Amino acid sequence: MIFSSKLIEDAVQAFSKLPGIGKKTALRMVLHLLKQQKEEVEQFTRAISKMRQEIRFCEECHNVSDAAICAICANPLRNHAEICVVENLRDVIAIESTQQFSGVYHVLGGILSPLDGIGPDQLNISNLHDRVKRLEARELIMALSPTIEGDTTAYFIARQLSDIPLKITTIARGIAFGGELEYADEQTLARSIAKRLPIDNYVSLRRENQ
Amino acid sequence: MIFSSKLIEDAVQAFSKLPGIGKKTALRMVLHLLKQQKEEVEQFTRAISKMRQEIRFCEECHNVSDAAICAICANPLRNHAEICVVENLRDVIAIESTQQFSGVYHVLGGILSPLDGIGPDQLNISNLHDRVKRLEARELIMALSPTIEGDTTAYFIARQLSDIPLKITTIARGIAFGGELEYADEQTLARSIAKRLPIDNYVSLRRENQ
Repeated sequence: MIFSSKLIEDAVQAFSKLPGIGKKTALRMVLHLLKQQKEEVEQFTRAISKMRQEIRFCEECHNVSDAAICAICANPLRNHAEICVVENLRDVIAIESTQQFSGVYHVLGGILSPLDGIGPDQLNISNLHDRVKRLEARELIMALSPTIEGDTTAYFIARQLSDIPLKITTIARGIAFGGELEYADEQTLARSIAKRLPIDNYVSLRRENQ
Repeated sequence: MIFSSKLIEDAVQAFSKLPGIGKKTALRMVLHLLKQQKEEVEQFTRAISKMRQEIRFCEECHNVSDAAICAICANPLRNHAEICVVENLRDVIAIESTQQFSGVYHVLGGILSPLDGIGPDQLNISNLHDRVKRLEARELIMALSPTIEGDTTAYFIARQLSDIPLKITTIARGIAFGGELEYADEQTLARSIAKRLPIDNYVSLRRENQ
């Protein structure tokens, strides 16, 4: 594409760096913003700029946060003895949107994947042992994607915490095998949290299915 | 969706106001930007903010412009006696990208559409007569979408300029009837400019086809 305006060209360039956005879609967005009032476009760019500049990671659960401790960890009405282990922020948003979970989270920031060079040191696992003890957690819910990597991560964590008397569960398989957690609809995800199974049971279930 | 962070929520809101962007896609963009360096995200928002704040409309052709006169109108190497009439910026970009046209443009900013309440006063038509005379234009190329509105607009303009000795042509119908100009591929569009027809010939062609 040839633009006769450097301003337009730079803005299209900027948008087309976003995932899944090609040049034509980027141009469509730029033309849309051109039609908006200047103040509205400022609001748009300010929201994004502010988000990136001010976002932090919760010192407790490693979720993204507006403060040192995130809104979930800082909420005394949540059940801090129930910790839900998830891969990333997307999963937190997905589970929060079901309104079925009143505990707290532990965001790993990824999943064990030797092929991609992601070992335990690249994830937020090291402080989980301390956290479980300090919070006197009674239950740890593994809400990881039902893939080999997800299962491996769940077992690795379960083994790390084997010296603590703790119920370790996994969300029920309401979601399809091999499916990604973040694409599940809210209802399925809500049911799979409500019907969660002790992890031993779940392992034998998987064995039977294979 | 329930976000535990106001910063994330505001950024997702901002993105989901863009055309064709739902909440999930907006979240995907936000998570992508979260992974980028702060400086990169600043570049992104700056390019968009700057574009909206500084963009102007060319006093000559009404195209968007970085200065009072756009880069095309200000270019002495372009043929100012050949004016291509288009609906909007998208069409200018599409035609410029073919690298087949060395004249200048006249951007209407829309198309005559009585049903949508768009009459000649809403478009940049009034100064076209003066411009054609001043530039001593020899040819006016109608590069409008092949729809009833596009044809109506072309005829309206042709009638307005009937007192000036001027060759009025239209781009060749290499593009499908009923198709939108902006979605044509570059090659088709390039050929349709190269093979443009005098407007009378084109009218009879259309009549034969109907």
